[in-house]
Amino acid sequence: MSNLLEGIDDPDDLKTLNLAQLPVLAEEIREAIIGFCTAHGGHLGSNLGAVELTIALHYVFRSPKDRIVFDVSHQCYTHKILTGRARAFLDPDRYGTVSGFTCRAESPHDHFDLGHTGTSISLAAGMATVRDLSHEHHHVIAVIGDGSLSSGTALEGLNCAAKVEGQLIIVCNDNEMAIDENVGGLYGNLAELRNSQGHSPHNIFRDLGLDYRYVESGNDAATMVRMFESVKDLDHPVVIHVHTRKGLGIERHRVPGLREGHDRNNHWCDPTPRDDSSSGASPTGHNARWTYGSMAMESLLTRFREDPSLVVISPATAGSNGILPDFINSAGSHYIDVGIAEEHAISLACGIARGGGSPIVATSATFFQRAYDQIQQEMSLNASAVTLLVFAAGISDSDVTHSGAFDIPLLGNIPDLTCLAPTGGGQMLDMLAWSSGPARRPVLIRMPGERVLAYERANGNVFSEQESVRRWRASGTSVESSSSSHPWSRYRVVHEGSGTALIGLGNAYPLALDVARILREGTASNPRTGRSQVPDLSDPTVIDPQQYSTLDTSTLDWLRSRHRLVVTLEDSQLNGGWGQRISAYYARSAMRVMSVGAGMAFTDRVALGELTHRYGMEEEAVVTELRRLATL
Amino acid sequence: MSNLLEGIDDPDDLKTLNLAQLPVLAEEIREAIIGFCTAHGGHLGSNLGAVELTIALHYVFRSPKDRIVFDVSHQCYTHKILTGRARAFLDPDRYGTVSGFTCRAESPHDHFDLGHTGTSISLAAGMATVRDLSHEHHHVIAVIGDGSLSSGTALEGLNCAAKVEGQLIIVCNDNEMAIDENVGGLYGNLAELRNSQGHSPHNIFRDLGLDYRYVESGNDAATMVRMFESVKDLDHPVVIHVHTRKGLGIERHRVPGLREGHDRNNHWCDPTPRDDSSSGASPTGHNARWTYGSMAMESLLTRFREDPSLVVISPATAGSNGILPDFINSAGSHYIDVGIAEEHAISLACGIARGGGSPIVATSATFFQRAYDQIQQEMSLNASAVTLLVFAAGISDSDVTHSGAFDIPLLGNIPDLTCLAPTGGGQMLDMLAWSSGPARRPVLIRMPGERVLAYERANGNVFSEQESVRRWRASGTSVESSSSSHPWSRYRVVHEGSGTALIGLGNAYPLALDVARILREGTASNPRTGRSQVPDLSDPTVIDPQQYSTLDTSTLDWLRSRHRLVVTLEDSQLNGGWGQRISAYYARSAMRVMSVGAGMAFTDRVALGELTHRYGMEEEAVVTELRRLATL
Repeated sequence: MSNLLEGIDDPDDLKTLNLAQLPVLAEEIREAIIGFCTAHGGHLGSNLGAVELTIALHYVFRSPKDRIVFDVSHQCYTHKILTGRARAFLDPDRYGTVSGFTCRAESPHDHFDLGHTGTSISLAAGMATVRDLSHEHHHVIAVIGDGSLSSGTALEGLNCAAKVEGQLIIVCNDNEMAIDENVGGLYGNLAELRNSQGHSPHNIFRDLGLDYRYVESGNDAATMVRMFESVKDLDHPVVIHVHTRKGLGIERHRVPGLREGHDRNNHWCDPTPRDDSSSGASPTGHNARWTYGSMAMESLLTRFREDPSLVVISPATAGSNGILPDFINSAGSHYIDVGIAEEHAISLACGIARGGGSPIVATSATFFQRAYDQIQQEMSLNASAVTLLVFAAGISDSDVTHSGAFDIPLLGNIPDLTCLAPTGGGQMLDMLAWSSGPARRPVLIRMPGERVLAYERANGNVFSEQESVRRWRASGTSVESSSSSHPWSRYRVVHEGSGTALIGLGNAYPLALDVARILREGTASNPRTGRSQVPDLSDPTVIDPQQYSTLDTSTLDWLRSRHRLVVTLEDSQLNGGWGQRISAYYARSAMRVMSVGAGMAFTDRVALGELTHRYGMEEEAVVTELRRLATL
Repeated sequence: MSNLLEGIDDPDDLKTLNLAQLPVLAEEIREAIIGFCTAHGGHLGSNLGAVELTIALHYVFRSPKDRIVFDVSHQCYTHKILTGRARAFLDPDRYGTVSGFTCRAESPHDHFDLGHTGTSISLAAGMATVRDLSHEHHHVIAVIGDGSLSSGTALEGLNCAAKVEGQLIIVCNDNEMAIDENVGGLYGNLAELRNSQGHSPHNIFRDLGLDYRYVESGNDAATMVRMFESVKDLDHPVVIHVHTRKGLGIERHRVPGLREGHDRNNHWCDPTPRDDSSSGASPTGHNARWTYGSMAMESLLTRFREDPSLVVISPATAGSNGILPDFINSAGSHYIDVGIAEEHAISLACGIARGGGSPIVATSATFFQRAYDQIQQEMSLNASAVTLLVFAAGISDSDVTHSGAFDIPLLGNIPDLTCLAPTGGGQMLDMLAWSSGPARRPVLIRMPGERVLAYERANGNVFSEQESVRRWRASGTSVESSSSSHPWSRYRVVHEGSGTALIGLGNAYPLALDVARILREGTASNPRTGRSQVPDLSDPTVIDPQQYSTLDTSTLDWLRSRHRLVVTLEDSQLNGGWGQRISAYYARSAMRVMSVGAGMAFTDRVALGELTHRYGMEEEAVVTELRRLATL
């Protein structure tokens, strides 16, 4: 077999091939992507569908002088392979040396780091605008699709793109799929356009003032080359609607368990099947996000019969949050996937709540950012009885665009929003039963992460989600019958000590326990650091605050009587966060406060161990700093 | 003349009228709205256009059992008048007793407090969804239009509305105008639909899977009644596209200086012409927002000739921010109004910046909330050289949906975003020249507010915007020639005292000066509070921190040597804000910190004097608390 890929270090090398060689190259790239994704994990289906159109883009245009902006980057692997980064997909030793998303630091061919959907049209419109203002001459292309088109920011961009007065190409990769199934009226119009080979008079792109071309054979490289050649010098914006097959090649290459086309499992491929993240795994093989998410859904299932207005809303990526096909099938009309449309998800939920229903919106911390305004205005200001389940919150080894380290500063400072931080699955289920039942107020539940899962596992508290929910029900700790008061507004004092108090919020609660244990053991076992020298550390008080929307001032005031130092621990950014509020509460007094948490920085694929080290969030680092402070 | 309005305390009273009486009623309502707006101030043009369609809604439907959701509420005055609140528009003594927006506290006919655009479709879809799940029977109607349709959140809602399986009416009030002129491709399609009397096959609503009806005579009440009667029992969502005339009646009633239809000045009518707010006025009759905004625009005008890539972007409401017709005409392609599309505005700016341009995005603090994710991801994380001009920041006497009290917690905690807080017009111009010139980084400038304007006025520093810019240029303090370093990263120590340090951020800087003056005078003139008793207060250090994105730790460390108490002052929410960061910085030491700022609460039309009193932000309250702390 030929090996064309070996000879391509740059798009210029690609241009030396003839059209007949492009399918061969496409096959090599497809093989590389499948090998990479099955061994290392990655966005499989979306990338496989976009191989030929990306080859054609680099064949026709001259990147990086011509700017190609890949929306959300679920489709950028071929682009990376053709722009000098092929070895990262071919050589197992180099897997992981490139980001899964476009990345400015990697290549001058990547103009942005993009991991949230839908902004490519606006970004490209800006690049075209400044090009024309500056009288420069190059082409600008946005590549969008794979479900991104339904996000409000993409629709705003599409609506404004016609204002660009010069060249602009918007490639809409229509693979008939979003991350989950396509949702919303727009995708109906795309289907009508596909069925009419682009000829239907009903054409949302034309309605928005844009020129339009349709390509049925989007996985034929030569066709795509001819199309791009024919539109490259248009003097106005044009949409190229390209019909491709998501996951093309999966079946020929016999990827286990996956199918081409309409298979929601082919979007993301992980080396450990059914596990969405490489970090952490429960006894049943799942990470915290999956484990607690499916536990939450399991607890809701039986309530659907009694409560017709209990509704789970997911703005895409349901599977990663433990919202699985079995649940979706059983839930019926109690489950709504709105596609990638976080803003709509929140307002829809607020409408349901105002009508007396109990909506629950589930997505990851990083994606709730999109709906800040709706969470603040339609939900909190309007006292809408919506529950947010915030997944993947806290510091993370993710790429730079998906970190969960910013959620407490962002959402924890919204008035009238009750923010709960459970430190175990049972408590999380209690909170969900309350928030979606008697609470009738805006509530956020910050779903527990890996450290809580590991702690529960070490204590024998994690079972299958069914068994966990059964035991929770049997325990009778349900708060469904409680009044409308807030059952977790008071901090839970786990151990009453003296001198120093450790307050560990949510995922940082196990850290507080570990620090306390070391301090107690260290005091007993090491005479040099014993009671006589640092009395304040020998018997620390340990507190699980359970929530971060209000301060439990009576507990904080009580601490003054027997403590000189308070330690706050959280796994989110300190600036604007929860610990700084406690600092401020004590700031006029003699109480000293040490806040442990994340720095103010974007981090890109930094291992969790390195991050906790960097931020002083390891138990030994906390203990060392405590000993220093206590002996001052 | 008849007085039908007197007899209408409830929509049921309206139903006793016959169709022929509705135009008479409409005329009475129109007169009331004009009288109210010209005397009290209010959204004039948008409300005048929607009189008849609102009468027809209440004539046909049974509110509040049937739910009518008014988007952003620029069109809700007739609704308020017909639902028991007419006297608030008729009786000058009762002007101001109702909110300018829908308000749950006022009436069971108001289902939400809405002041940000575009969420009505999603909210109504939620209400329809829960109605159908619960097998209830009533109608749900969303009323949108007046430029709101181009916001991403409205487009998401429109895209998902077809998923509602039961009755849902979306009234699209097409008055041919946004707040400024309609922008974007969608409005072109609306024009085509108007021109074809709704018959064009190019129909974005139908493309999104929605049923559709067109009404040309949207200001004819009987026509609107017949239309609503004909669609009220449809079992699926339908869009009623209604052509109305914005500001209808303005000319007949001879409102000075205003015209009907395409007049951007008729959107909002103020009792003091050309002034956008009732609070504060400069010597030239303008408030701080207008004064500093037009000063900023004036400073940019002459630079457009040299720099073709300098671009001002406004997501609507330009006029309120001093972006005036003269500027817009002179700026030409250097000015882009994207309509109500904050997310697109930010990404467009990021694209311009990546292409080498210098974009400036101007809107109010409350509207930047819509684009948090783009400000965090596309702008800050991607190091895009965009300048944000944040207007109307800080506590405010606005309605509950437009407060500027949340911007520092929201935007001040984003990594890599330089946040500047000028304490005068000249400094603001320096900062803008730097950020849009040599800085090449993400920068936010928090535009000065009324307290800074009053302080400058008292010191003779405020002139016409042209004169202010001329004097600024002549002063030679421009930092355009500086390197890429950050000229304001160090705090400016205005007075070196001892004992207590007052750090006043931006709009709170004049408060710091006032407190310092009282302390110095109080010490000298009053022996009981003199030097011997509270030495720490006799000669406070005064600092203008100039920025709030980083701490100037060398200045903060220097303060330790001669001070026991640090006072931080800001005019935004304390929780998650800037002062709490300073508290946290000193929390491990003996330094005491007192932070002055706003509480964590939504406030609705609370007078500024009452707010400053409530939050202890008056100089005397700060002094009293300082004296208490200093003698502890």
